[in-house]
Amino acid sequence: MRIGILNSGGDCPGLNAVIHGVVGAADQLGWEVIGFRDGFEGLLPPGDYTILKPKDTVGILKMGGTILGTTNKGHFAAKVGKGDIAEVPPEIVAKAKRTMEQLEISALVIVGGDGSLTTGLQLYREGWPIIGVPKTIDNDLHATAMTFGFDSAVNSVVDGLDRLQTTADSHKRVMVLEVMGRHAGWIALWGGIAGGASVVLLPEIPFSYEKVAEHIKARDAQGYHSTLVVVAEGACLPQGDIVSVDANCGGEVRLGGVGQVVAKRLEELTGKETRSCTLGHLQRGGAPTSLDRILGMRFGVMAVKLASEGDFGRMVSYQSYHVGSVPIQEAVNKLRLVEPDSELVQAARAVGICLGE
Amino acid sequence: MRIGILNSGGDCPGLNAVIHGVVGAADQLGWEVIGFRDGFEGLLPPGDYTILKPKDTVGILKMGGTILGTTNKGHFAAKVGKGDIAEVPPEIVAKAKRTMEQLEISALVIVGGDGSLTTGLQLYREGWPIIGVPKTIDNDLHATAMTFGFDSAVNSVVDGLDRLQTTADSHKRVMVLEVMGRHAGWIALWGGIAGGASVVLLPEIPFSYEKVAEHIKARDAQGYHSTLVVVAEGACLPQGDIVSVDANCGGEVRLGGVGQVVAKRLEELTGKETRSCTLGHLQRGGAPTSLDRILGMRFGVMAVKLASEGDFGRMVSYQSYHVGSVPIQEAVNKLRLVEPDSELVQAARAVGICLGE
Amino acid sequence: MRIGILNSGGDCPGLNAVIHGVVGAADQLGWEVIGFRDGFEGLLPPGDYTILKPKDTVGILKMGGTILGTTNKGHFAAKVGKGDIAEVPPEIVAKAKRTMEQLEISALVIVGGDGSLTTGLQLYREGWPIIGVPKTIDNDLHATAMTFGFDSAVNSVVDGLDRLQTTADSHKRVMVLEVMGRHAGWIALWGGIAGGASVVLLPEIPFSYEKVAEHIKARDAQGYHSTLVVVAEGACLPQGDIVSVDANCGGEVRLGGVGQVVAKRLEELTGKETRSCTLGHLQRGGAPTSLDRILGMRFGVMAVKLASEGDFGRMVSYQSYHVGSVPIQEAVNKLRLVEPDSELVQAARAVGICLGE
Amino acid sequence: MRIGILNSGGDCPGLNAVIHGVVGAADQLGWEVIGFRDGFEGLLPPGDYTILKPKDTVGILKMGGTILGTTNKGHFAAKVGKGDIAEVPPEIVAKAKRTMEQLEISALVIVGGDGSLTTGLQLYREGWPIIGVPKTIDNDLHATAMTFGFDSAVNSVVDGLDRLQTTADSHKRVMVLEVMGRHAGWIALWGGIAGGASVVLLPEIPFSYEKVAEHIKARDAQGYHSTLVVVAEGACLPQGDIVSVDANCGGEVRLGGVGQVVAKRLEELTGKETRSCTLGHLQRGGAPTSLDRILGMRFGVMAVKLASEGDFGRMVSYQSYHVGSVPIQEAVNKLRLVEPDSELVQAARAVGICLGE
Repeated sequence: MRIGILNSGGDCPGLNAVIHGVVGAADQLGWEVIGFRDGFEGLLPPGDYTILKPKDTVGILKMGGTILGTTNKGHFAAKVGKGDIAEVPPEIVAKAKRTMEQLEISALVIVGGDGSLTTGLQLYREGWPIIGVPKTIDNDLHATAMTFGFDSAVNSVVDGLDRLQTTADSHKRVMVLEVMGRHAGWIALWGGIAGGASVVLLPEIPFSYEKVAEHIKARDAQGYHSTLVVVAEGACLPQGDIVSVDANCGGEVRLGGVGQVVAKRLEELTGKETRSCTLGHLQRGGAPTSLDRILGMRFGVMAVKLASEGDFGRMVSYQSYHVGSVPIQEAVNKLRLVEPDSELVQAARAVGICLGE
Repeated sequence: MRIGILNSGGDCPGLNAVIHGVVGAADQLGWEVIGFRDGFEGLLPPGDYTILKPKDTVGILKMGGTILGTTNKGHFAAKVGKGDIAEVPPEIVAKAKRTMEQLEISALVIVGGDGSLTTGLQLYREGWPIIGVPKTIDNDLHATAMTFGFDSAVNSVVDGLDRLQTTADSHKRVMVLEVMGRHAGWIALWGGIAGGASVVLLPEIPFSYEKVAEHIKARDAQGYHSTLVVVAEGACLPQGDIVSVDANCGGEVRLGGVGQVVAKRLEELTGKETRSCTLGHLQRGGAPTSLDRILGMRFGVMAVKLASEGDFGRMVSYQSYHVGSVPIQEAVNKLRLVEPDSELVQAARAVGICLGE
Repeated sequence: MRIGILNSGGDCPGLNAVIHGVVGAADQLGWEVIGFRDGFEGLLPPGDYTILKPKDTVGILKMGGTILGTTNKGHFAAKVGKGDIAEVPPEIVAKAKRTMEQLEISALVIVGGDGSLTTGLQLYREGWPIIGVPKTIDNDLHATAMTFGFDSAVNSVVDGLDRLQTTADSHKRVMVLEVMGRHAGWIALWGGIAGGASVVLLPEIPFSYEKVAEHIKARDAQGYHSTLVVVAEGACLPQGDIVSVDANCGGEVRLGGVGQVVAKRLEELTGKETRSCTLGHLQRGGAPTSLDRILGMRFGVMAVKLASEGDFGRMVSYQSYHVGSVPIQEAVNKLRLVEPDSELVQAARAVGICLGE
Repeated sequence: MRIGILNSGGDCPGLNAVIHGVVGAADQLGWEVIGFRDGFEGLLPPGDYTILKPKDTVGILKMGGTILGTTNKGHFAAKVGKGDIAEVPPEIVAKAKRTMEQLEISALVIVGGDGSLTTGLQLYREGWPIIGVPKTIDNDLHATAMTFGFDSAVNSVVDGLDRLQTTADSHKRVMVLEVMGRHAGWIALWGGIAGGASVVLLPEIPFSYEKVAEHIKARDAQGYHSTLVVVAEGACLPQGDIVSVDANCGGEVRLGGVGQVVAKRLEELTGKETRSCTLGHLQRGGAPTSLDRILGMRFGVMAVKLASEGDFGRMVSYQSYHVGSVPIQEAVNKLRLVEPDSELVQAARAVGICLGE
């Protein structure tokens, strides 16, 4: 029996842990694992793949990125149509199917984000033996309480804030750090709290520059002459603000925009020297944290279990501190956002963090 | 209004985050915070304490240990009697009560382990306004799904394994790392998985030296000439094994025993050069991880919320990804152990980790 | 007896170690230390300063930035005139002198870069008891073989490259990392070598985009589908290239310019997906490395020794693995640059690093 | 043309960087590199070796240990005879020579410590084309100002002290950390200074328990209730002290002895709770620091340069901030020790570090 695996979309710490889990669990069942390279692209004839044995995954648990490579867009890119059905062109699907058949793949594990899982759902509905593994560094998928990569990204934000704090203190500056999070502010919120930021601006909570500026000036009056501001790339900017989109990034990730805009406004309103930094690609890479290694590995093992039981069309999921699964169709297109009145947000406010309201 | 706080028992990364949360939340309510020094000892007349304002907790979120100090044993040490009632000598309780009254403490937050919380329960039953915050680096308290300090301890184990792996590989050795965990093997299991150990020995799962030696020899035959072994200090050793207790540690923590015994046996059985290391105090200290900072802070904020609502006799708890509370009496003396057939343990086995069975 | 100390110019890991060294050594001599705040500004009447005792410097050895604060520009900013004489306005000097006299400062330790030391030289020539301590994160001062902060900055670059590598590999991208170094490429060169970059572009070595593109394409042909490029902010760009200066940074540090320009050109020439990142303020802050802590501390101790011996007008310096001193006037305005044919550069070339020639 | 390389003796961070440098530089000259496994053992017929190409060393710059493996003792172990001549048995040398001839090795790079280099010297004197690369994590070889691995070991000590400090503070304890250094105290001294230890005990400076205890008590009186003590494994203990040698370590490294002895005495003399920890193998492994990566790589490149010039019998050496070489016979058996009155030691004393005198 053969199980295929591919990674799709932006890379994320923990992808290799999933591969490690899949390969280890498959090996114990006597299954062979075929790793397709560069996402769905590897499925196109003649097929770009490698056979993965336990020896090939020694040490990858600790490595960021993915040894299989991944693709953000490619031949399988598709507008998501009505009813949550991705519309990958039929001729592409047919070609890929030929590879599946020639390689006699009994189950295909797709590790990807919302878009890739929607593609997986389309394929499943067309009869493919699909197992989904959620990959969202933003941790914003409703159907799973936690995803790998998030803890690592939060750590990158904390590392960044640690570095900015000493220089902010020395120069009595306001430092604005732009981090990931187009729809959900989890990275900004967790990173901001753990890294000692005093202002955190999220997509979910509209903010006012005046309120933030007041907060900074109040801090100054209390003797805190520096302030760290974390802003999610999708922060809910006051209307009328124009954010330049970095052409270099092909629209994929909006870099260098929001942080600079916020920094400029805050400098005008507070009169304090203000600098901005964009973490950008620095928060995607690097070694995964312990938690992400374990979570990714468990996801991979569960994917093989589902495959061995012929339980297709399901996505691995973390619920109530155990790894299980849910139907893919119940998982896609449903975001888990920061709730403005949740216990976590209240705790942030309780320790004096300004959310800009 | 005044709220008191004390840390009791062994130190743990995240204690300062709890203090930070308590001080921040109390300040927003206009409450004053009294930090008692060195655990319950600080309650003894004339009282050893300090007033804590937000300025006093700047930056402590990131610091290991506790700025208040803590005591493992002292005047409040007591045999736990029947019915979960600690029996702190009445004259000690009376003295401490005087301090409480003189300082007009409206609520006392006790951050401590099972023993300290049992003492807290005794005091609550005698009418004290007690709020408990669980502190167990081993993450083995039944009433809370997660405790601060655990993630940091796991990281220390992973750091240790990372260091041992390169030297083990270079010299083709078996390396045994002894880690914390007298009753529960969570640290050993999480640390072992995330750090790439091939053998993990826990208190919950009896093991056989022969099985472990076979595993190591099988690895050798497959070309893996080094093996990392993680052993919890309370690992379930085969009967008849004598473990020397390090007299230097006063019986508090059993250091340098189990790891050396296991290393010696494995060397005899495998014929491979084997070395042992004891992480000891190295896994208690250091800066808390992001997760532990946030969890500790949320616990502190919730403690103040309970205090402000007069909801005494309760312990802060993490359940279903939110911080809430449970009655202290339902929380103490109930351990959460590694279940030998849980999804996590199965995942470890699936990727080839030997648990010695 | 009283010794004054001030930090001037951009912050740098190790400044606090210098303060720690000065305070410790002065204390042993029975001298009092006055720390002036925010650079030379602290000298202006009525004087902004704090008395520093050993207790005030506990733990600062490990902290980035400076507890005294620093100023980049201010009342003492001066065009450097002929003959290496800074021309701080006489009325400013006179005011500062009054503070020196009122506080009865016997020696003033200036920890600063080339500009600040030139100001120090002017003051020394006017009779002030000046001791200089070199601060250049770029490690480009001719008169000292090593300066604190450099090793820490190199580590920041290596951390950044570690993070970029996994994402570059996963997506088969070229990643351009812009780092500090306006005149000298030491940070880019050391960071690039240690972090595994394949291309390093320096101020000292003119490069050709075509040569770099050829190198990347040759790597592709050999199966290395990702490439890390480190570019110093002052890299010797081919003529005609326009670099946008980030207005937000007030001209102080040129951010976000060179890296983006280089990335765009390389993408055009290689056809490979290319991204750029700017480390910016992230490489200034954070905890100093062991080496920088020790070097800074030794510099501080030597400054006090010079002060105690009345050996003014001298700058602390590291030569032949020992800390000694040189006349300030021989130290300022003489840069130590990367020599294109040095053993270090040859070693970089020998392991296949492209310097763009 | 073929160049051979082997690593001998205990592993050390940076060994892989040397291999990386040798392979890169040899490749540019069109030479082939043969890596012998497990030290000199790999030379025994039929030869245990691997051909190393640049692709085989991708990423190893950042890895601790050595991909070639190493052996501490083995067939080449020899009593060092008179006149610095190692006396490897002639029949062993003859066998190894056969491997050299069959593989047509034109130069053999030996990366090893004093003992291994002495063996190298013997072989050179018997006509072998030997190039030495010094490997001493203790940084105690007279003929080179710096060796790779030292900075990484110092960092491990600092990491350890950082972890111990928070727990020492919380419990008001004395913490004794035993580190490497049988003959020279460089690791203890650098690690102790950078990690904030207040007492450092070295092989080079005899100490008195009474003086150390007085220092700790004086600190207590000043309000510093915890003290970090670093003790080198070869610390110059007062006469009469018996140190138990850990049988598990085969006499190779004396673990668990000195630190415990010192802790016990200090506890008796100060009455303060005292704990000891032994870093042991934790300080050998892990990823090399930036500095060690670069130094190792430069050493490797220089070794190939010497080989290509037929300059045999020489050892790579770092002098005056450049990598060059010296005759092996001038390098072996001459230690560089901590000088009790050097500027570095004076600086340590100046900031209040007690050396036990």
